Amino acid sequence: MLKNVSRALLREGRKVYKHKLHSKPNFTKNNYDVVRGNYNYVEEEHLNYFRSLLGESRIFTDLSDLEKYNVDWNRYLRGASQIVLKPKTTEEVSKILTFCNHHRLAVSPQGGHTGMVGGATPVFDEVIISTELMNEIISLDEKAGILTCLAGCVLQNLDEYLAERNLIFPLDLGAKGSCQIGGNVSTNAGGLRVLKYGNLHGNVLGLEAVQANGVVLDFLTCHKKDNTGYHLKHLFIGSEGTLGVVTKVAVQCKLRPKSLHVAFLGLQSFDKVLQTFYKAKQDMDEILTAFEVIDAPSMDLVTSKLELESPIGDYPFYVLIETTGSNEEHDEEKVNQFLESCLKKHHILNGTVTGEISKARGIWQLREKIPEAFKYDGYVFMYDISLPLDHYYKLVDDMREYMGDKSHRVYGFGHIGDGNIHLQISVKEFSPEMKSFIEPYIFHQTKKYNGSISAEHGMGFLKAKYLHMMKTPETINLMKNVKQMMDPNGILNPYKVLV
Amino acid sequence: MLKNVSRALLREGRKVYKHKLHSKPNFTKNNYDVVRGNYNYVEEEHLNYFRSLLGESRIFTDLSDLEKYNVDWNRYLRGASQIVLKPKTTEEVSKILTFCNHHRLAVSPQGGHTGMVGGATPVFDEVIISTELMNEIISLDEKAGILTCLAGCVLQNLDEYLAERNLIFPLDLGAKGSCQIGGNVSTNAGGLRVLKYGNLHGNVLGLEAVQANGVVLDFLTCHKKDNTGYHLKHLFIGSEGTLGVVTKVAVQCKLRPKSLHVAFLGLQSFDKVLQTFYKAKQDMDEILTAFEVIDAPSMDLVTSKLELESPIGDYPFYVLIETTGSNEEHDEEKVNQFLESCLKKHHILNGTVTGEISKARGIWQLREKIPEAFKYDGYVFMYDISLPLDHYYKLVDDMREYMGDKSHRVYGFGHIGDGNIHLQISVKEFSPEMKSFIEPYIFHQTKKYNGSISAEHGMGFLKAKYLHMMKTPETINLMKNVKQMMDPNGILNPYKVLV
Repeated sequence: MLKNVSRALLREGRKVYKHKLHSKPNFTKNNYDVVRGNYNYVEEEHLNYFRSLLGESRIFTDLSDLEKYNVDWNRYLRGASQIVLKPKTTEEVSKILTFCNHHRLAVSPQGGHTGMVGGATPVFDEVIISTELMNEIISLDEKAGILTCLAGCVLQNLDEYLAERNLIFPLDLGAKGSCQIGGNVSTNAGGLRVLKYGNLHGNVLGLEAVQANGVVLDFLTCHKKDNTGYHLKHLFIGSEGTLGVVTKVAVQCKLRPKSLHVAFLGLQSFDKVLQTFYKAKQDMDEILTAFEVIDAPSMDLVTSKLELESPIGDYPFYVLIETTGSNEEHDEEKVNQFLESCLKKHHILNGTVTGEISKARGIWQLREKIPEAFKYDGYVFMYDISLPLDHYYKLVDDMREYMGDKSHRVYGFGHIGDGNIHLQISVKEFSPEMKSFIEPYIFHQTKKYNGSISAEHGMGFLKAKYLHMMKTPETINLMKNVKQMMDPNGILNPYKVLV
Repeated sequence: MLKNVSRALLREGRKVYKHKLHSKPNFTKNNYDVVRGNYNYVEEEHLNYFRSLLGESRIFTDLSDLEKYNVDWNRYLRGASQIVLKPKTTEEVSKILTFCNHHRLAVSPQGGHTGMVGGATPVFDEVIISTELMNEIISLDEKAGILTCLAGCVLQNLDEYLAERNLIFPLDLGAKGSCQIGGNVSTNAGGLRVLKYGNLHGNVLGLEAVQANGVVLDFLTCHKKDNTGYHLKHLFIGSEGTLGVVTKVAVQCKLRPKSLHVAFLGLQSFDKVLQTFYKAKQDMDEILTAFEVIDAPSMDLVTSKLELESPIGDYPFYVLIETTGSNEEHDEEKVNQFLESCLKKHHILNGTVTGEISKARGIWQLREKIPEAFKYDGYVFMYDISLPLDHYYKLVDDMREYMGDKSHRVYGFGHIGDGNIHLQISVKEFSPEMKSFIEPYIFHQTKKYNGSISAEHGMGFLKAKYLHMMKTPETINLMKNVKQMMDPNGILNPYKVLV
C-alpha cells in the first residue's frame, strides 16, 4: 500500500527532476545565514610563503581547479576558497598551520571530501589543506594486524593492500573509493562493519595530529592496551578537524575472514525486520558482520535510477545480512538454518543467499549505491539518525505523514545493527522555506524518540546550529573551553560543529 | 631447567616470607619522595557541612574503619586520610566537590580500591569519596544490550544480573568480585575479554561525570553511533579520577554466548606459544574470547601457594584458550580440529579441553588467582606491560638475568591476544634501593622493545613519575593544559598520573 503511493509520486518526480543532476550550487554564504569570521584574507605575501614551502605544483589557485574542493559531494554547498595547499608531510602541515595561525588565516582541512554535512567544505575563503598527497602506508605489522599510514590514504586502497596480506580494515563505507582515513578518523566514520568490529574509538590504536599552532602531537602508539596518561587521541576522533589536523593513523586491523555469505530477504513489515534481526543475533552472533535494512521507496529509487534489480522481486522491506567467519561449512549451515527458521516463523517472505564474492558484491550494490541515486531525485534533504530500535522506522512514517504531498519520496535505509537510519526527504528543489518546514521539526521528533540527530555523519556545517538540542549547556561550555584551549584564534574549520 | 632454578629459590622464599602476609604497610608519604600539595586540612566546619549533607552514617572518621580505604589491595601503600564520604547520588557528589573545590580540600575518588598502582589510594590526608553506595542499576534495554548504572556497581554483580537476561558484560577481570564499574571506566580497565569485545573506549556508550567545580556533565547517550559534537566522555575513560568523578555509565553489552570451551595446554617454549596463538586466530578467530599465557614460575607460585593443581602436569609454558559462540557443535569441532592440528605440528605437548562451565571455571582459577598468590611470595614488584609479540617474553628473560640472585622469582603471565604481559619480580622485602635497582631499568628495556610501561593498570601513584618516558613533552604539556582547564585548583586525585 505504502509502496504504491510512493511509486505514484515517483513517476512524477523522475520526469521533473532529472535535469538537476549537474546543476551548480549557489555559494553557501548566500544560501545560509552565516557571517564571515574576523580572519585575514589571503594575500600575495601569504602565497609567496606557501610557494616557498610547497613549490608551485602543490598550490592550486585556479578557480576551475578549485571546483571539486569548494563544492561538496552532494553538490548542495559551495565554498569561496581561493587556494588549496597539498602538503606531503606532517612537517609541512605543521608549517602551514603555524603560518596561518600567526597570520590569522582560517583553514579548512579536507580529506576525500565525501562528507554529507559539509564538514570539509569551506564556507567563505578558508585556506583548504588537502591531505590527498599524504597517501603513504608507513608500516604494517602483519602478525599483529597493525597498519600505520598517512592521513590521505584512500580507504579502499588500504583495504585492498590488507586483503593481499590476509587482513581486513575494520571500517567500510559506501564512499570507500574516495574517502581518506584522516577524514574517516576526524569524523568518526561508522559505516557497515561497526556491528562486527566496533567503532573507530575502539579500533584506532594511535594517531598523530597537528594543533592549530603547528605543534605536532604524537599519539602514535601501536598497543591494544596502553594506559599511560590521558587518552587524548579521542579529542581528534570525531571533532571534524576543528581541534587539529590528523596526519597519521595506526589502526587495529582484523584477520580477513575465510568465508563470506550475503543474504537478501524480502519482508512484510518493519516488525518482521526486527524479529529477523533478533533471531540473527541469537543464531549467528559471532559471524554476523552486517544487518542492513532498505525500505521499498529506497529500493525503488536505486533500481529505477541506476538500473539495478532486486534479486527477489518487490517487498515492503528488504534486509541485507552479511556473515563472515573462519569455517565455510559451519557458516553456511548457520545461515541456512537461520533462513529456514525465519521462513517457518513467517519472519521473512522470500530470500536469496550466496557465498560467492561476485554475487555478494552485486547484492551489496543495492544498498551501497542508494546515495548515488539521490542525485536523480530532485533535492534530497538527508538525515542520519540513531534511534532506539522500537522507534527506528516510526520516524520515517511520521515524516511521510508530516510532509504529505510536499515530498515525492520519504524513505529510509540503514544499519539496524547499530540503530542507525538514513532518512531522506526528496523535494522538487531546495528552498529555505522547505528547509524550515522540515528542520528543526525532524530533530524534535528524533529527540522525542530518544534519538541522536547525527549518528555517523557528524555536525559539520549543516547540523552545527542544532548542537544545543543534543548537548547540555554544561557540555557545550566544556566543548567551547576545549576549542579555546586547542585553537585560541579559531582558525581551524570555522562555521562547523560549534557555532 | 628454568623451572628447577625457580623452584630451588622458592623453597627458601616460602619459609622466610610467609609472615609478611598480614603486615601493615608504612605510610606512603614516608616511603616515597612526595611532598604534600598546598591544600587545606579537613576541619570541624568542613565535617559539619559533610554531616549536614550525608548524615552521620555515611561519613567515616574512625581510623580503624578507614583502614581499607587507606591501604591498597596489595598492602604496599598507606594513605593518611581522616575521612571517607559515601554519597548515594550524583547531586551529593556534585555538592561534595563544589565544597571541596571552594575550600581547597584535596579529594581521592575511590571505587572498589582494587587497583595495582595506587591510583585510588590517598597519599596524604585527601578526602576519600567512595562510590560504594552508588550501586543501583538504572536501566537495561535487553534487546539492544544497553546497561545503564551508577558508578559503584560491582562488576560481578552486573555480569550476574546480565547473565539472568542472556547478556554478558564486555569486561571481565580477576578483581570482578570487588572492583566497581566507575573505577573500571576511570582506569580504562582491560582484562580478559578485550581480545573478543575490545576496550572500554569502544564499549562505553555514555557516562556522567562530575567536574572538580561540581558541574555535572551528562554524556549519557545510549547510541552505538552518536556524532553530535566532541567525544568528551573519553577524557574520563582512563584519566584515573584526575579530571572528574564518574557517576554513571552506559555500556554496550553483548548477547551471552550459548557455547563455551576452555582449553589448557602445555608448551615447550614461548615460540610455540606464539605459533599456537597465530594458529588459533587462523582456525577460530570469530569464537576466540581469550588467549592467556602462564609461565612455569607463575604456575608454580599459584599451585604451591594456593593449593591448586595443573590439570596436565608440568611444562615450561601454559596456554589457556577460551572460545564462545552460538553453536556448541560447531565450536567443539573447531576447537578439537585446532588442538589436533597443534599436536600434529608439535606446537603443543599436551592439553585438555572442556565444555563444562564448572570445569572451565576451575581452569580459569589457575590464571585468575595468580595475583592472590603474590602475598605469599615476599615483596612483589609488579609490572603491567604492553609489548610487540616478538618481544613479549624477552623482557622476562632479560629481567631474570638482570636480577640474578637478588630475586627468588621473576615471572610473567598475561593476555597474549592483547600483547599485554604481567611481569613480576619477587624479592625478600621492599627497599628503596631494590626499587631503584629495578626501576627505571625495566622501563628502559620496555621502551627499547617499543613497549608501553602501563598496559591496563594505569599510572596511578606508582608509575606517575615515569610518564615522560612514554609521552612527548608536547603531549604532557597538553595533558597539563587539560588538567588546568578541568581542575584549576588541582583538588582531584593529586600525586597521581601527572606529577
